[in-house]
Amino acid sequence: MLNRDPATRNPLRRGEPTFDGGRGLGGPGELELLSGIRQRAEGHGARALTLGIGDDCALLRPRPGEDLAVTTDLSVAGRHFRLEWHPAASVGHRTLARGLSDLASMGARPLAAFLSLGLPRELTGGARGGGASWLDRFLDGFFALANASQAALAGGDLAESPVAAADIVLIGAVPRGRALLRSGARAGEVLYMTGTLGGAAAAFQRLSGLAEAAEANRRPRRLRIPKSLGPELVPHLYPQPRLAQGQWLMRRRVATAAIDISDGLSTDLGHLCEESGVAAEVRAEALPVHAGATLEEALHGGEEYELLFTAPASARVPRSIAGVPITAIGRILRRSKGRPQVTLVSAEGSRSLEAHGWQHFK
Amino acid sequence: MLNRDPATRNPLRRGEPTFDGGRGLGGPGELELLSGIRQRAEGHGARALTLGIGDDCALLRPRPGEDLAVTTDLSVAGRHFRLEWHPAASVGHRTLARGLSDLASMGARPLAAFLSLGLPRELTGGARGGGASWLDRFLDGFFALANASQAALAGGDLAESPVAAADIVLIGAVPRGRALLRSGARAGEVLYMTGTLGGAAAAFQRLSGLAEAAEANRRPRRLRIPKSLGPELVPHLYPQPRLAQGQWLMRRRVATAAIDISDGLSTDLGHLCEESGVAAEVRAEALPVHAGATLEEALHGGEEYELLFTAPASARVPRSIAGVPITAIGRILRRSKGRPQVTLVSAEGSRSLEAHGWQHFK
Repeated sequence: MLNRDPATRNPLRRGEPTFDGGRGLGGPGELELLSGIRQRAEGHGARALTLGIGDDCALLRPRPGEDLAVTTDLSVAGRHFRLEWHPAASVGHRTLARGLSDLASMGARPLAAFLSLGLPRELTGGARGGGASWLDRFLDGFFALANASQAALAGGDLAESPVAAADIVLIGAVPRGRALLRSGARAGEVLYMTGTLGGAAAAFQRLSGLAEAAEANRRPRRLRIPKSLGPELVPHLYPQPRLAQGQWLMRRRVATAAIDISDGLSTDLGHLCEESGVAAEVRAEALPVHAGATLEEALHGGEEYELLFTAPASARVPRSIAGVPITAIGRILRRSKGRPQVTLVSAEGSRSLEAHGWQHFK
Repeated sequence: MLNRDPATRNPLRRGEPTFDGGRGLGGPGELELLSGIRQRAEGHGARALTLGIGDDCALLRPRPGEDLAVTTDLSVAGRHFRLEWHPAASVGHRTLARGLSDLASMGARPLAAFLSLGLPRELTGGARGGGASWLDRFLDGFFALANASQAALAGGDLAESPVAAADIVLIGAVPRGRALLRSGARAGEVLYMTGTLGGAAAAFQRLSGLAEAAEANRRPRRLRIPKSLGPELVPHLYPQPRLAQGQWLMRRRVATAAIDISDGLSTDLGHLCEESGVAAEVRAEALPVHAGATLEEALHGGEEYELLFTAPASARVPRSIAGVPITAIGRILRRSKGRPQVTLVSAEGSRSLEAHGWQHFK
């Protein structure tokens, strides 16, 4: 039944596009919320951002000779994160990291971010006793990574939603025609990756173990993570997008193709092969498996945000880029009948490596 | 409890950023869904879109000397639309119209759209008897407007969500430094608007009346709209963003400031005054009230997507632009102590016009 009070008779309305007065969440505190976000976003604008939060659109002024890379990623509570498991700051960090990693894989540098949040009202209010709200802590994690990555928050939207969801848009710049694509790999090239594999999956297993134990003990809704476990969980809670590495590979014209390992090596290498029209061979013993992770976690673990890239056999690829180790893990082959798209070679012999990226709840 | 099957042990995963293989919705039919969206998006790319759906990012190549305008709008079921009331094609149309209208108000021409959809699984499956799914019909409405507006769908994301939500990102181009801002209005200028006011609000009242009648009669979940009512409901179900008019005003250097009327005249004129540091006076008898709408609906009705703009008194403003009438509705005044931000002048005298844009459910 509709409320016929003139000020509230229409249950359908739109919020403002750029955090500038939209009342997407309703309630008296919302203008303060929005102005708080606007304040936190100020002073961190890239020079390319000529108009930030406060008008119908943000305005970007790319440098001449630049292409713009654009990516968007939707995270939904219960699917991409769990309110009971993940600290709010981790959800903010991970939301942004997903988008930044897509820029990294193209060799683009971040110009601006746009964040749309749908949130249950209880997540926007302060905790009892005047503590920070879930949204405050989400923004702590978001802005810490945004500032470190020089990704200015240039706009977004805020609306009440029964389910928490965050959609992140990243716009980056890359010299014209120089973006690293998935489609550039050729037979004979070497397959490389940054960092290690399986750390995020192992940390997730640890986190889910904690959660199960807490559930079994009927502990409170929000999981408490022991401080001592913090470092172990970092690869899952606070993964680092490889922006510096992607830009280095683009600038030095080293990589012929690249993709970020967001759905697991087996899945993302399949994408790269598909788009390049090639096959690949991975040597199991060459894989830089994260300490404490299993080979299975390294092969199929998602949300690593490491870069997978190819380079000609003659290319000089350094052992590390900006402090992150680079490892040759295999090679690119011609696609041919009867050959698996991706072959895993190990001491036990060769087998087809099927895509087993992270799956949903069943 | 987690499923320990290796392929499904992680309930947290990310989808692909660009509709290119992400399994955000899970299930066997999803790759088909995504490839269907990709297919529908192809062949409508702007020349500026050098790489569309299929890599980690889309790539845009702006013309030299152009600024990019970016806007993002989140629509959530039960708040911005109702699954029981709105035809799916209308939801698709309105989702895109919100973003396009923001471009229109800056005088920008659309380059590319990015669409993130969180959907309950039942909305993505076909109707019994092989009919089109809710998503199919959403896309019908979306692409009809996208194609008419030359806004290429360049990417997006798709995830299962218990609540339907759509986040739209629009990127447009405008000659450098020429975007129409909210902040450019000066005292002495004339206040104009495109089209009529109150039509969307009146149509919404009609729609909610139908819904209440159906509820009272315990009719089925989905509202059936009698064909004869179609034209009357168009201003609410299929509002037209004023892209041609905004670009004309920018190109001819006629407008000094502009905003789209998305939250109601009283609210959006307040925004314009705020950002320009001015006050305004509106003449009630000059308002182009839509046939069948009340003055209240014209003053406070949102989701009109008409443009409100200012021009110097000496400017030659035509009576219509691209077939849409232009009406002078008031003037811009100096901000001064004791003067309301917006004054409404009518036969009954002058009064302060307070912002009463559309509000949420209480």
